[in-house]
Amino acid sequence: MFVAKVIGSIVATQKVATMTGHKLLLVEPYRIDPADRSKLVPTGRTFVTVDPLGAGVGQMVLLCQGSSARLTPETDKLPIDAVIIGLVDQVDVEGQVIFRDDQPSQD
Amino acid sequence: MFVAKVIGSIVATQKVATMTGHKLLLVEPYRIDPADRSKLVPTGRTFVTVDPLGAGVGQMVLLCQGSSARLTPETDKLPIDAVIIGLVDQVDVEGQVIFRDDQPSQD
Amino acid sequence: MFVAKVIGSIVATQKVATMTGHKLLLVEPYRIDPADRSKLVPTGRTFVTVDPLGAGVGQMVLLCQGSSARLTPETDKLPIDAVIIGLVDQVDVEGQVIFRDDQPSQD
Amino acid sequence: MFVAKVIGSIVATQKVATMTGHKLLLVEPYRIDPADRSKLVPTGRTFVTVDPLGAGVGQMVLLCQGSSARLTPETDKLPIDAVIIGLVDQVDVEGQVIFRDDQPSQD
Amino acid sequence: MFVAKVIGSIVATQKVATMTGHKLLLVEPYRIDPADRSKLVPTGRTFVTVDPLGAGVGQMVLLCQGSSARLTPETDKLPIDAVIIGLVDQVDVEGQVIFRDDQPSQD
Repeated sequence: MFVAKVIGSIVATQKVATMTGHKLLLVEPYRIDPADRSKLVPTGRTFVTVDPLGAGVGQMVLLCQGSSARLTPETDKLPIDAVIIGLVDQVDVEGQVIFRDDQPSQD
Repeated sequence: MFVAKVIGSIVATQKVATMTGHKLLLVEPYRIDPADRSKLVPTGRTFVTVDPLGAGVGQMVLLCQGSSARLTPETDKLPIDAVIIGLVDQVDVEGQVIFRDDQPSQD
Repeated sequence: MFVAKVIGSIVATQKVATMTGHKLLLVEPYRIDPADRSKLVPTGRTFVTVDPLGAGVGQMVLLCQGSSARLTPETDKLPIDAVIIGLVDQVDVEGQVIFRDDQPSQD
Repeated sequence: MFVAKVIGSIVATQKVATMTGHKLLLVEPYRIDPADRSKLVPTGRTFVTVDPLGAGVGQMVLLCQGSSARLTPETDKLPIDAVIIGLVDQVDVEGQVIFRDDQPSQD
Repeated sequence: MFVAKVIGSIVATQKVATMTGHKLLLVEPYRIDPADRSKLVPTGRTFVTVDPLGAGVGQMVLLCQGSSARLTPETDKLPIDAVIIGLVDQVDVEGQVIFRDDQPSQD
């Protein structure tokens, strides 16, 4: 899996039938900055993913790729290759917190 | 999945039997321009995909790769690793519309 | 899938039992030249593939990767990750023919 | 598979239901240094993985990717694309030991 | 599949239970040298693979990746993403032999 940031969304009216109703988000994978291991930096790649968890733009998420993207109840048998499986609260690297979600709770 | 632009097509008369009748399109994946996040830029890669949605050259589409390419009714059990699952109408990034399909409706 | 050129072959006498009798070809994926979109250029990568279609060296083929490589009658349940699913006759990009197979027919 | 070093962990409170209770580790794949084949160097990539073996930060592990990540008893049918399948004690390259785990035993 | 050279091995005492007894080799994929198409050059990548064929260090092998790695009798249902499916005797490129295994027979 990858840590990725939600950066936007896709509108696609004409879709394969089973995809109707599934929100499509644009995400950008992040990695540890090789030059400064205390922060995450974008990889410059752009993926589209299905989101069963209601992530918002700016949120850091956990992205699963490949056939396993079909292994959540909401995405069973869908023709997709990526799904969000978690909302990232915190990333620890070598004993140091390098990311903490500071968005106000939505509850 | 990736956002990709349809740039052409492939003619292949001799094919594995089950592939007969499936149109093959050439697509080029796009990503957010790291230098100017308000536009999409090509990645320089070239893929071939099956298209169950009737996309035209120049159209921006949503591409699914891997085993899930077999998970549409039209591509069930085909020996393929890529399929178009949507026609992209609009791409929003960080609150801004960075792509809108301006092709005249085909209806 | 990718467009790839057949550049050679592999001899492997000791193989996993089910692979006996399956010819192994060396192929090189091609992509649209970013600097001149009217021609295909090699990507510099080298793959080995099973070939159920009898492609010859120099021929442009359509390569399918991943689990779907097992989805042709000739490759069912084989331990392979790539198969040729078509022989490319012609590639059209943005309304222009950029590749046409000019090998004499083998019939 | 890849040799990778455990560099940290991810906290994700909101997850797809089946992921509850599965610890998520951050790992960095390593490869043979092309300039000095007697040592391993990081690739600069960052993956997130499920860990059924209790690896600690700093430990070198063996990472399996793709659908096979679901093929351990602990990860059966999970929506994941990476799993740790071994803790690396030693790496030998061309007759030379280039890595040996020198962490004190945890028994 | 890829042509790869066996460069070493991995010792991992603590493994997922089903992996016990499976030897793990370190391999380096090779490709045609773009600058001199009469030889193979390493790609600089490092993979770990299961080996059901008894390959030795220095031997050129054929590597299968992904879910198909589970499709040999010896690797059925294992949590692995790579397996050696053949020992390479000879590689021909554009009518020229560019690699021939010159190791003395082990019979």
